[in-house]
Order: sequence, then C-alpha cells, then structure tokens
Amino acid sequence: MNYYQQHHEDYLEGLKTFLRIPSISTLSEHKPDIQKAAEFVRDELKKAGLDQAQLIEGQGNPLVYAEWLGAPGKPTLLFYGHYDVQPPDPLDEWKSPPFEPAIRNDNIYARGSADDKGQTYILIKAVDGLLKQHGKLPINVKFLVEGEEEVGGEHIESYVASKPARLKADAAVICDTEMFAPELPTICVGLRGIVYGELWVQGADHDLHSGIYGGAAPNPIQAIAEILCALKDAQGHIRIPGFYDRVQKPSDKERAAWARLPLNEKEYTEKEMGAKELVGEPDIPLLERTWARPTLEVHGIRGGFTGEGAKTVIPARAVAKISMRLVPDMNPKEIIRLYKSYVKKITPPGIRTAIRILSSAPASVVSTDSRWIAAGAEALEQVFKKKTVYMRSGGSIPVVGTFQKFLKAPSVMMGFGLPDDNIHAPNEKFHLPNFYRGIKTVGRFLELLGK
Amino acid sequence: MNYYQQHHEDYLEGLKTFLRIPSISTLSEHKPDIQKAAEFVRDELKKAGLDQAQLIEGQGNPLVYAEWLGAPGKPTLLFYGHYDVQPPDPLDEWKSPPFEPAIRNDNIYARGSADDKGQTYILIKAVDGLLKQHGKLPINVKFLVEGEEEVGGEHIESYVASKPARLKADAAVICDTEMFAPELPTICVGLRGIVYGELWVQGADHDLHSGIYGGAAPNPIQAIAEILCALKDAQGHIRIPGFYDRVQKPSDKERAAWARLPLNEKEYTEKEMGAKELVGEPDIPLLERTWARPTLEVHGIRGGFTGEGAKTVIPARAVAKISMRLVPDMNPKEIIRLYKSYVKKITPPGIRTAIRILSSAPASVVSTDSRWIAAGAEALEQVFKKKTVYMRSGGSIPVVGTFQKFLKAPSVMMGFGLPDDNIHAPNEKFHLPNFYRGIKTVGRFLELLGK
Repeated sequence: MNYYQQHHEDYLEGLKTFLRIPSISTLSEHKPDIQKAAEFVRDELKKAGLDQAQLIEGQGNPLVYAEWLGAPGKPTLLFYGHYDVQPPDPLDEWKSPPFEPAIRNDNIYARGSADDKGQTYILIKAVDGLLKQHGKLPINVKFLVEGEEEVGGEHIESYVASKPARLKADAAVICDTEMFAPELPTICVGLRGIVYGELWVQGADHDLHSGIYGGAAPNPIQAIAEILCALKDAQGHIRIPGFYDRVQKPSDKERAAWARLPLNEKEYTEKEMGAKELVGEPDIPLLERTWARPTLEVHGIRGGFTGEGAKTVIPARAVAKISMRLVPDMNPKEIIRLYKSYVKKITPPGIRTAIRILSSAPASVVSTDSRWIAAGAEALEQVFKKKTVYMRSGGSIPVVGTFQKFLKAPSVMMGFGLPDDNIHAPNEKFHLPNFYRGIKTVGRFLELLGK
Repeated sequence: MNYYQQHHEDYLEGLKTFLRIPSISTLSEHKPDIQKAAEFVRDELKKAGLDQAQLIEGQGNPLVYAEWLGAPGKPTLLFYGHYDVQPPDPLDEWKSPPFEPAIRNDNIYARGSADDKGQTYILIKAVDGLLKQHGKLPINVKFLVEGEEEVGGEHIESYVASKPARLKADAAVICDTEMFAPELPTICVGLRGIVYGELWVQGADHDLHSGIYGGAAPNPIQAIAEILCALKDAQGHIRIPGFYDRVQKPSDKERAAWARLPLNEKEYTEKEMGAKELVGEPDIPLLERTWARPTLEVHGIRGGFTGEGAKTVIPARAVAKISMRLVPDMNPKEIIRLYKSYVKKITPPGIRTAIRILSSAPASVVSTDSRWIAAGAEALEQVFKKKTVYMRSGGSIPVVGTFQKFLKAPSVMMGFGLPDDNIHAPNEKFHLPNFYRGIKTVGRFLELLGK
C-alpha cells in the first residue's frame, strides 16, 4: 500500500469538513461561510508544507495564495481551484442535505463535492503527499484558489492582472472539469464563454385586475414570452442579428476525434439528463452543439402571483435570468451590445425592458501541442491505465482566459468529475475512486515534469 | 341630518373591524380568518335585526345566511356579497398595511375595502337602517354571503342548487361591481366568465448545468414562452382553434350606448392603469375589448433560480397560472377541452405539460327591461342626482349565472366601486362618500320596490 493509499481516510475526513461549509458565493448572507472556506483552504495549504499561505483580502471574496519555490531551474505550475459553490436549491429534491456529506455507492454527495471543493482538495493533497514523503517537490508550485467562480470571478482577473510577477508560471493547472466517461482519462482543451444577465420587464406601474383590464393592459409575463421566442426559435437557433458572425467551427481533426468518443445518445438523454429527448439545432451533432455552438438559455423566471390557488392579476413586472454561452471567436462586449439592442427592438408595445449584465467572459481553446498537456496526459494514463482523450466543455471557466492573457500561461484542465455528477443541481456527487486517483495523478504529473 | 347621516361614524368603525380580518380565501393558512369574517357578517346581520342569521358550514368556507320575511305579498330580494379577499402581495407596494385600514383623501385603504367587504357592508347597513328606523322592511330580504368568491365560488353553486325553496327570490342584488366613472351611477348588466388554471411544464427530471447541457437539453421556461406565444399572438388574438366560434357580438344598441360613455383613453391608460399604452386586438374599441371579448392572460410564472445573483441552471420544471375570460355564449367546458387539446398539440419536443383547472364559470348578461333594474336605476338617480348608465364588466361573478340557473332570479348589479380602486392590487381603496351613498341608495331601492 503506497503513501496515498494509506491516507484515504484522512483525505475523506478533510474533504467532508470542507464540504460542510455552505460557501455559496451568490447569496450575501453566506459571507461568513465564504470566509470560513477560504481560511480552511489556507490552513490546509499551510499544513501541507507550502510557504506564504495567506488570504488576499480586499475587493470581493478572499483569494487564497501559497507557494513552494524550492526547485530552482525547474518549471513552475500555478494551481487553480475554487472554494465557493452554487446555491443548493431546490432543496426538497436532495436525498441527503446539501451540506451534510453522505456516502452512497462509492460517491460522496454534497454541494461542491465535484464543483469544485473535491477537485481543489485533490491539488492540495497531491502536493501535501509529495512534501510529506520527500520533504520537497520535483518542481515549483503556486496556488491561487478563489471564492467567486460561481458568480463570474470578477476580482481574480484584476488580481492576476495586477500581480504578473508574483503569479508567473509556465502553465496553470485547473482541476474543475470532468472526464468524458467513467474510467476514461480526459483533458479538457476548450471552454465556452458566457454573458449572464437579468431581463427586467415592466408593464403598468401597478398590478391590475385581469377581469377589468384584461384585453387592454400590457402583460409583462406575456412580453417576456414574446421576447424569449424572438431571441431563440423552436430549433434552438438564436435570432439576435450578428450573433453567429464570429463563430469559429471546430477543425476537421477535432470533429473526427469527437466522433470517436464513446457516446450513447439514448443513455446521455435518458439516464444522465433524465429527459425524453434532446433539443437544439437539429443538423449539428450533439457534442458540437454543447461544446462549440453558442447558446441562449433562461435560468429562472419570476412574475405575478405564484402562491397556492388563484389570483386574477395582471402583474406590473416580471424578471428572467438569461445567459448566452459563447464560443471562439465571439466577443462578450459585442454580444452584450447586440443583445441589448435587439431586445430593445423586440420589446412589445406598452412594455419597458431593462437588462442588467452580471458577468461575462470569452471562450477559450488550449493547444494540445505542449509539454504540459503531454505530461498531464501521461500521468493520467499511468494512473487510469487507459489512453487520455481530449474534449471540450460547454461550461465556462473564465480564469483560463485570464491566465493566458496576463501570465501567458496555458492551462492544463485535468478534471476528475463524471458526467452524471449533478453539478449545479440537486444531489451533486463526486466519485470517491476518482478523488483518490486524482490525488495520485496530480502527484505523478509533478514527478513527470520534474524529470 | 337623516338617520343614515347620523351613523356615518358607526358604519366606518364597523367597516374597519371587518377589514382588519385577513380573510384570504386562496391561502389555507388563513382558514381561521375566514371563520372570523363569516362570524362577523353573521353577527352584524343579527344585530341589524334579521332572522335566522347563521353560518352554513359543510364543504369549503362557511356561507352566511339571514332573512327578514315580514312583508307578505311584497317582493323578495336575495342580497349577495362575499367576505373573502384576494392575497395582498406584493406587500412592499402598499403605502399602509393591507389589513390596517387607513384613511387618506376620503378613501379607506385596505385589502377588501372595495372588493367586497365595503360593498357587502353597504347591504347590511342599508337593511339595518330601515329596521332600526321603522321596525320593519318595505319588502322581504334574504342574505347569502360567501367566502370563496376569489377562488371560484364552487360551493355556493352546489348550495344554491340544493336549496331553491329556501333561497327563492324575485331578484338578486349583487353589490360587487363598480361605477363607470366617479359620480356616474351605474348598473352592471354583463360579466365575463372565466376558466382559471395552472400549466405545469417539465423538461428533464432534474436541474441541469447550462454549460454542460445548454444547446441539447429541453428548457421548460423556454417551453412556457413558446406555449404562451402559440396561445396568443402579439395583437392579442387567441390562437386556440375554435376559441371564438361561439362569441356573440354586443348589439348595435349596446355599442352605441358604450360609445356615449365618458371615457378618456389617455387618462384610462396613464392614470388609471399606470401604463404607457393600451394593447390588445387593434380593430376592436376599448370597452368592447374589456367587456365583450374573451382574453387569455398569464397571472404568474415561476421556474428555475430567481434568487439574488447568478445560477447557471436549466431548470427541470416551471409553472404558469393562466386564465381565459369568456363572453356569451362561450361554454367553459368546451373551452377547457379546446385549450387542453391545443396545449398538448403545441407542447415542444422533450417537454411534458399538465394542465390543472382551478375554477370556471360562464359569462352572463342581464336584460335591462325589468322592474328590478328600473327600481335600482331610480334609487341611484335619487341619491346621486344623475342619470344611471348601464355598463358591462370584464370581471367574473359566477354567482350571477348560478342565481339565474337555479332560482330563475335575475341579478341587479349595483356597485359603488370606482375604476381606480386597485382591486386585486396593492393599495386597494374604497371611496367613503360612495360607501355612505351606497347605504342610502340600497335603502331607497327597497322603499321603491315596496311601494
């Protein structure tokens, strides 16, 4: 039994402690939990034997920094993770409470288990293991762990921009993605960008009786429906003029590799998604639709009377949360401009609309021809005993673009989540064998780069 | 100073007590308040000197019954009102709390002040005044006051159907409508019917990450948007096949009378509704649109993440509350059937829908050629010193159809509300001079019929 295997129990207990902190970044009442989670990460880094472990406080939620620079002449990696999590609602759909980790069938269930506390903890424990065993690391490492990933990560960007010397690294390692399938080691080489905002719609300035005024009064919920239908047609095609102008198609090589990936559309639809059938642009293959095509999705809507029973009101206002996922080479600023101007144009008579953008980030694609990706792929293969595949993700990790832009550091996105981990949804889980293999893989990765 | 004038203070205090009871019928936690309001009405009828004052309990919220039958050979009127109210939300838009009556500018502000506690109290106090002054009434009266008007009034119908002998009357008097304009005495001679229901929409069986699945997963909010747009076009035309087949147009005489009513569309839109412009079927005049055309309105919608900040989820389900107002001779059962079958047809791929109907009632139109309407119009003219006008209302009072069907009793809808009373909305009010004139008018009405 090797060192890592001997410490499975410790790793699990530490992870549970981390998962019990409800560090929900989008809800301001959880500020104290954000602080607690940041301090937990700092303390773990300190215990692992890293230097300079500290909170970087100022604007927004604290960043956690630490470093080990005892291998002069060797490469330097910047390890990234995030300690904040998504809100757990709808709460009543969780089989066990979201912040009381529960183990069922080799999985640990809790909000943040896969996204991203479990994966952040992999990075920490891999380094911890090497330092405990050898008293040193084969290469230099820096950690930068943030607490605003789920709300757009605005402040990490300005910090990275302001400290290029301190954060200087040859490559970044991001442990916040998933494997394409169970037992299939995977490196993610592309992410979609995002524009996320709220659409506020106002009809009359107060609620109206639907009997007295129905047929003459503007209805903001109907208006949101008309706007949503004007934004996206029934085939999933987004109707904002100019929206697709800069969209780059994936290369023929990428398309061919994607076609070889093991994907059972029926299982994907029925088991993983729990849906009856897939939707979206009908003439574009599934993986291209979710990895390399932009989207427009409504995440939430609220308006009028939604309590028990009946209330015959025409509400004064309604609001919807809407995002657009972006692909290379779409420009978030330009998309925001096109979106705002189109919504203005399609706003129905008698209705006022206002758009509030909450966050935005461009898409990013990483080249597969680098020693960093090669070493990552090799480490994965040694631990998982299978050939590593390259995928893209439909999600957005804005920090990848930030590291490229300000540090000129390419990212290695080595993730250990699984497609059915329910991230951002009830019953989020993390597969424990992947948690342990992740720690071993990251340790191996450092050793390979140190050779 | 006559008897009624001497008692303004008492009437106001009694009304305030009535308004302080939050008898919201659509929220089950207010059951005790429903009971309290019913007992208040019963006690007031008893104090007025009526016989048999009692609660009729059994199914649903109690009905209140009372009678005075001491005028043999004279006509019998059945007085109807309701003691239940709409929910007060959105609470933060009230200038004074909805269940703490406040007087500003000759108006009393409270939920239920106009709809319908103030108007129900008018009926009670008119009878009270005559009995206190003369020890008897000029004609026979029965009271039937319900507590489910705002939730469809299902149980009053079965009660009326089961007790035609007890409730036998020559005509019903319903004090639950409004005057066409301030100082313009009005009798309402037509009401729209209603079908009210919930539309439940399901995509996947759990919430999904919009990055990973966006572009392929069915989105129930987008589906509701598509369904709403398929149900009603941007010109307010309802697209359910067969929906308009039985719609009767108003007579030329009615149209001519409506065209003579004092209506300033700009004031109606901007001051009364607080809107920028009117919407709806463009080639149909405003009053015909709200009185004699069917509608389809969405009253509330809820789905996905609607908290503070951002959550990138494709929700599993969403729900909308939708009603259709009906006009003569539309049949609610047939409309429900057409609606359900059309929604089934237009449900987008990957989506499941379910419709739950909460209430329904047909439209009703009352003939103006009767001694009851004539006496009502005369009483109004004597008190208001102006010629009575006849209007219809876009609202729905299902009991009018019930009285016609089971008692063969036409209804006199004599209302004292005003168009800007904000019924069903924040800051509902009742104009106190109309409250006092209402009591006097109803007293006068009984005297005229007793001659």
